[in-house]
Amino acid sequence: MEVYLDNNATTMVDPKVFEEMKPFFIEKYGNPNSLHRFGAGTHPKMLEALNYLYEGINAADEDDIVITANATESINSVIKGIWVDKILNGDKKHIITSEVEHPAVTAACKFLESQGVAVTYLPVNEQGVLEASAVKEYIKEDTALVSIMWANNETGKIFPIKEIGQICKAAGVPFHTDATQAIGKVKVDVQDTNVDYLTFSAHKFHGPKGVGGTYIRKGYTLTPLLHGGEQMGGLRAGTVDVASMVGMGLAMKLATSPIALAHEEGHIKRLRDKLENAILEIPETIVIGGKENRTPNTTLISIRGVEGESMLWDLNQNGVGASTGSACASEDLEANPVMNAFGSDSELAHTGVRLSLSRFNTEEQIDYAINVIKNAVERLRGLSSSYAYAPESHKSAL
Amino acid sequence: MEVYLDNNATTMVDPKVFEEMKPFFIEKYGNPNSLHRFGAGTHPKMLEALNYLYEGINAADEDDIVITANATESINSVIKGIWVDKILNGDKKHIITSEVEHPAVTAACKFLESQGVAVTYLPVNEQGVLEASAVKEYIKEDTALVSIMWANNETGKIFPIKEIGQICKAAGVPFHTDATQAIGKVKVDVQDTNVDYLTFSAHKFHGPKGVGGTYIRKGYTLTPLLHGGEQMGGLRAGTVDVASMVGMGLAMKLATSPIALAHEEGHIKRLRDKLENAILEIPETIVIGGKENRTPNTTLISIRGVEGESMLWDLNQNGVGASTGSACASEDLEANPVMNAFGSDSELAHTGVRLSLSRFNTEEQIDYAINVIKNAVERLRGLSSSYAYAPESHKSAL
Ligand SMILES: Cc1ncc(COP(=O)(O)O)c(C=O)c1O
Ligand SMILES: Cc1ncc(COP(=O)(O)O)c(C=O)c1O
Repeated sequence: MEVYLDNNATTMVDPKVFEEMKPFFIEKYGNPNSLHRFGAGTHPKMLEALNYLYEGINAADEDDIVITANATESINSVIKGIWVDKILNGDKKHIITSEVEHPAVTAACKFLESQGVAVTYLPVNEQGVLEASAVKEYIKEDTALVSIMWANNETGKIFPIKEIGQICKAAGVPFHTDATQAIGKVKVDVQDTNVDYLTFSAHKFHGPKGVGGTYIRKGYTLTPLLHGGEQMGGLRAGTVDVASMVGMGLAMKLATSPIALAHEEGHIKRLRDKLENAILEIPETIVIGGKENRTPNTTLISIRGVEGESMLWDLNQNGVGASTGSACASEDLEANPVMNAFGSDSELAHTGVRLSLSRFNTEEQIDYAINVIKNAVERLRGLSSSYAYAPESHKSAL
Repeated sequence: MEVYLDNNATTMVDPKVFEEMKPFFIEKYGNPNSLHRFGAGTHPKMLEALNYLYEGINAADEDDIVITANATESINSVIKGIWVDKILNGDKKHIITSEVEHPAVTAACKFLESQGVAVTYLPVNEQGVLEASAVKEYIKEDTALVSIMWANNETGKIFPIKEIGQICKAAGVPFHTDATQAIGKVKVDVQDTNVDYLTFSAHKFHGPKGVGGTYIRKGYTLTPLLHGGEQMGGLRAGTVDVASMVGMGLAMKLATSPIALAHEEGHIKRLRDKLENAILEIPETIVIGGKENRTPNTTLISIRGVEGESMLWDLNQNGVGASTGSACASEDLEANPVMNAFGSDSELAHTGVRLSLSRFNTEEQIDYAINVIKNAVERLRGLSSSYAYAPESHKSAL
């Protein structure tokens, strides 16, 4: 059996989404900016897709949603757009973010630091959550942007976006949230929260790879990262990838409908909890950050004495796909930054396995995965010297 | 009949290319950065695609090809990467480009001007070609980059890239060429020309929209435009769009094989010439920039007394898709910048129609299009007051 439990890294394109995309490769291939039927013929489906995107995050008509290549581009466009506009060409000097953002945010911020910008990286608490009060403490006159993720990719922890938004609004500082891991998992409503910029990637909610979006609240603007043609109202140049845009639209609709979100909170959460509880029956296993306040599909579990990478290989041998954390960071085998944020216990940092579900997982798959995981732990603990010699260190490190 | 003659705006995805992409939406959807089979299973086809890209432009093994969202992103990454590296954080001050670049280059350069960078926009000669000697004249100690397109999107004119490369090399200045309109139309060989950065978009050569590439010669580097994960060797973050990358690879192979290029130079050129010569039989029509030194698929024709936009609408009514110039600029109905570059005759600037063919056009389509165009000219000239009253002004303006 093959069981894909790495849906926070990427997801399968929903077959309905792929059907929606198909006509735009060979039949309706025109450039939407062209005046003739080959181009203009794409407009109805593009408008429909845009409507689905607006509805999916409850954007107001006057707000903008800019189609990009992915969340990374969207995030870079917000952070660097603010840099150019408010720092290079303005009088602001400072950015606030958290220690557990995705590398797209962190690396863009490090780049700004290399250009002389002051960046505050706020730590998370023992539950892996950023407290809104921390933002309040560090926000200043010269803060150009606050950038805090809606949900963490590794733990699934949900951050207090509404409260942070209120603090930013009161301080008059633009607020960006990376909602890449929130869309399709929890309700994301830009009218209910004071979010000025919000970014996402279609491939995290069963849309295609290579397309994402940037929400921009009315009254806010952005120096383009991609200058060129007048596409996207001049905010993001480049020939529009119609197939992907249309696919992302339908994927958004399918992922954010009330029924879909209820399914996440119900069925998917139940499967996640079944999987998680079965693993927690194994001695000396813990859920990193605890069970509260998470996206319904994610669990990040530390299994003492079992190196995350070894675990992945063992699972892979048995057809189960999982991750030690963000796929972006997997290749270099470094300790997961989120787990590092929990403290300096490097054993803990190297023993995390992230299991992330989707609506395409079945109960049989979960039963199978539980079995595979239990066997893997037994085998790997048998091989592990650190497990045999330090039986108490794991729990005390928490 | 429907006849698509706007292949410089975008092309149909080759059905073979779409077949190649298909498995990567629903079957092999893993993130290539993941360690498990769902991710790693994508690697063989990605490597194959990368090989096709290297072969297509004759890149050396030690050179880099970075996969991006499109030529616009690639171009912005080169121009802004050089800005950050050599100007903001270096001692260079100046960029050289031409007056007839695509808006992706021009707008990125205008942005740099807004940041205090000196930009020289070199004019083209009466044949619409940039002379290499102009680069030599303006290149300076403090020039950070020369950016000149390989072939123009509107006239198809081919620029002396080899000579410009030699001048840049001698001066020690990095040379970028926007080869978006050259790939698949003429031979593009980075080892035969001293090009340090070269950019392209798959959808111009029967690949999908939403994917492009940046060639970077060994020894050169780039400050990323998209910071984040370690994809593309850290040069371009963001989850790789495997389907699009694989599609672009095969599209490159199909478009740049010796047989394909011979087909361009033979069959497609013959169809273009047939179409062009038939239109030139109509009195007071000219090929903007003349017939020499062009990509084999393109003609930009001025038909006196016939507004380009009116012509497009008339053609569209009859199933023929054409353009007044770059699709990027079409929506705002401004005069075509390339035609403006030919002089201040605004009538000329508004009477251009660009017809651009591809390997999917047939002889029957061309015969049909000739007929449609002739009828349209007759009808529109009958309506045009300027044509009736100023019969001599057109030719003398040249
Ligand atoms: C929270 C978060 N932000 C941003 C990204 C970047 O998404 P993409 O790789 O599609 O640009 C990811 C995915 O890896 C993510 O999980
Ligand atoms: C010469 C040239 N450069 C760049 C581009 C930009 O390509 P894209 O819109 O795919 O980014 C185009 C296409 O419009 C072009 O013709």
